Amino acid sequence: DPNLKVFSLNSNRDLAQEIASVIGVELGKCSVQRFSDGEIQINIEESIRGCDVYVIQSTSSPVNEHLMELLIMIDALKRASAKTINIVMPYYGYARQDRKARAREPITAKLAANLLETAGATRVITLDLHAPQIQGFFDIPIDHLMGVPILSEYFKKKAMDGDVVIVSPDHGGVTRARKMAERLKAPIAIIDKRRPKPNVAEVMNIVGNIDGKVAILIDDIIDTAGTITLAANALMENGASEVYACCTHPVLSGPAIERIQNSNIKELVVTNSIALPEEKKIDKIVELSVAPLIGEAIIRVHEEQSVSTLFD
Amino acid sequence: DPNLKVFSLNSNRDLAQEIASVIGVELGKCSVQRFSDGEIQINIEESIRGCDVYVIQSTSSPVNEHLMELLIMIDALKRASAKTINIVMPYYGYARQDRKARAREPITAKLAANLLETAGATRVITLDLHAPQIQGFFDIPIDHLMGVPILSEYFKKKAMDGDVVIVSPDHGGVTRARKMAERLKAPIAIIDKRRPKPNVAEVMNIVGNIDGKVAILIDDIIDTAGTITLAANALMENGASEVYACCTHPVLSGPAIERIQNSNIKELVVTNSIALPEEKKIDKIVELSVAPLIGEAIIRVHEEQSVSTLFD
Ligand SMILES: Nc1ncnc2c1ncn2[C@@H]1O[C@H](COP(=O)(O)O)[C@@H](O)[C@H]1O
Ligand SMILES: Nc1ncnc2c1ncn2[C@@H]1O[C@H](COP(=O)(O)O)[C@@H](O)[C@H]1O
Repeated sequence: DPNLKVFSLNSNRDLAQEIASVIGVELGKCSVQRFSDGEIQINIEESIRGCDVYVIQSTSSPVNEHLMELLIMIDALKRASAKTINIVMPYYGYARQDRKARAREPITAKLAANLLETAGATRVITLDLHAPQIQGFFDIPIDHLMGVPILSEYFKKKAMDGDVVIVSPDHGGVTRARKMAERLKAPIAIIDKRRPKPNVAEVMNIVGNIDGKVAILIDDIIDTAGTITLAANALMENGASEVYACCTHPVLSGPAIERIQNSNIKELVVTNSIALPEEKKIDKIVELSVAPLIGEAIIRVHEEQSVSTLFD
Repeated sequence: DPNLKVFSLNSNRDLAQEIASVIGVELGKCSVQRFSDGEIQINIEESIRGCDVYVIQSTSSPVNEHLMELLIMIDALKRASAKTINIVMPYYGYARQDRKARAREPITAKLAANLLETAGATRVITLDLHAPQIQGFFDIPIDHLMGVPILSEYFKKKAMDGDVVIVSPDHGGVTRARKMAERLKAPIAIIDKRRPKPNVAEVMNIVGNIDGKVAILIDDIIDTAGTITLAANALMENGASEVYACCTHPVLSGPAIERIQNSNIKELVVTNSIALPEEKKIDKIVELSVAPLIGEAIIRVHEEQSVSTLFD
């Protein structure tokens, strides 16, 4: 369909290329650069008048640069008479700022939704939002894809050395662990962090049976990797035979790579929702592509079919 | 008035401090930092419920960081029940992207206006917009201050070595040069760039009499300093006795400092609408403060008096 156009900004060029191949189109021509003073300069180099445009961009680090690229691109597309402007954000930055946890905090996840709509986005396709409630921050249609099937498929195909247990590193992630456990027909366990008294180190209790089992930790985001590496320690100390970890969004900031390298984690399985720079591509990290999932979602959206059936 | 609060973000902390002193208040308590992954973390550390809040922030380089700080701060203030949210932007970034000069370009100056309003700004106070039309990009009140009186005052007080002529480096800046000339009771001249044939270097003609005079070049923004240093050369070659230059907004990106250092320009006079980092504070550059002007504007806005009388 010549009316379907896919553009990439700077966050995930390889993924965008892969998505275009899945769909069977060429990436749209567009340059995204900087003026001498750092202001973003975008030139769309082909007509998109009357087209359904899909823009691939994660608001990963540098988040403010990537978000502004996206907003400015949407503005340019709107003014160039695109019919629809569909934003494909494999990783939705600022998702953890999704509520006022303390007085006078911003709710930046909602602000970002408002900014995208104001710029002119007509639809959002995203993956594993930190809180599914963020869907409600938008007044335009949003398709919420899931990384669990991709991560589960990997472990299903891998010959594991013993019985498997899926472990949530905290209470918030139990639903996600449950979904993976169903797909792998495995039981679940939960790490239960408690601080016995104020100013005393947290104690990690494990709820569920992990003894002699291969533990697979699952989270949505791994950022500084503090939680996940401490959880892996606790699992090994409490009798797990091996620990794997997986997540959809490898933020991996600050000490993350060093912590993972030095941890008990045998392998960390992630998706390419966030592009890993070369220095973060260590042997322990396995990258799975979300291009087939997102490509299929774009085709279905474009043909006005249901996206939810992707998860059957 | 305890209901008047002034907050500073990260672009111009010294200027904000000065403005607070002019008004006679303490700066509001607020931390603006980064999470490990680069996301902005803002904490407003005092109640602002029911207050008229003024936020000082130029969207100077790094423009996307500074703009996002501002938007997130506005979101936080709105949710903390500020009565009015007044944005003081001495320098309005992206102002040069104010029209579609080519097909499929964004109009980022308008996008920025929309984003500020969406976040919750209720008024904007700014200085020397690149194009005064940008005022019309807002549907909220905007006060547009002028740098010319401050720059003129400096040259009025300075003993100049001969007759003065005010020079606009291009056609776009003639109105500005005219205003300065009136204040200094001096004539004007204009640099008229022409390319005689395609692929032949531009020729700089000078319209107006500069022979034996002290030329003062005035522009709104000096960015890479290409235009202004070439203009200074042309003036000296055509008989000016000395060349000064001045501008409101010292963007000074890329080769600017080196060019100014090596140029015929005797002194470059700028304002602190954009904070100069230490490495740009060279002897040739004189910085004038806009704090008295902005402080007075804030007082007048707060007391619901006219700001335009500031320029009498
Ligand atoms: N980029 C970030 N990095 C680390 N923590 C964050 C970030 N954004 C928000 N937070 C904090 O993370 C908490 C929310 O995370 P969670 O409890 O996992 O939903 C809140 O207290 C936020 O202040
Ligand atoms: N940050 C920037 N640095 C340099 N040029 C820019 C910048 N933003 C916009 N422009 C260009 O500057 C021109 C407008 O400047 P002017 O003709 O002086 O109004 C347009 O062609 C823009 O594409």
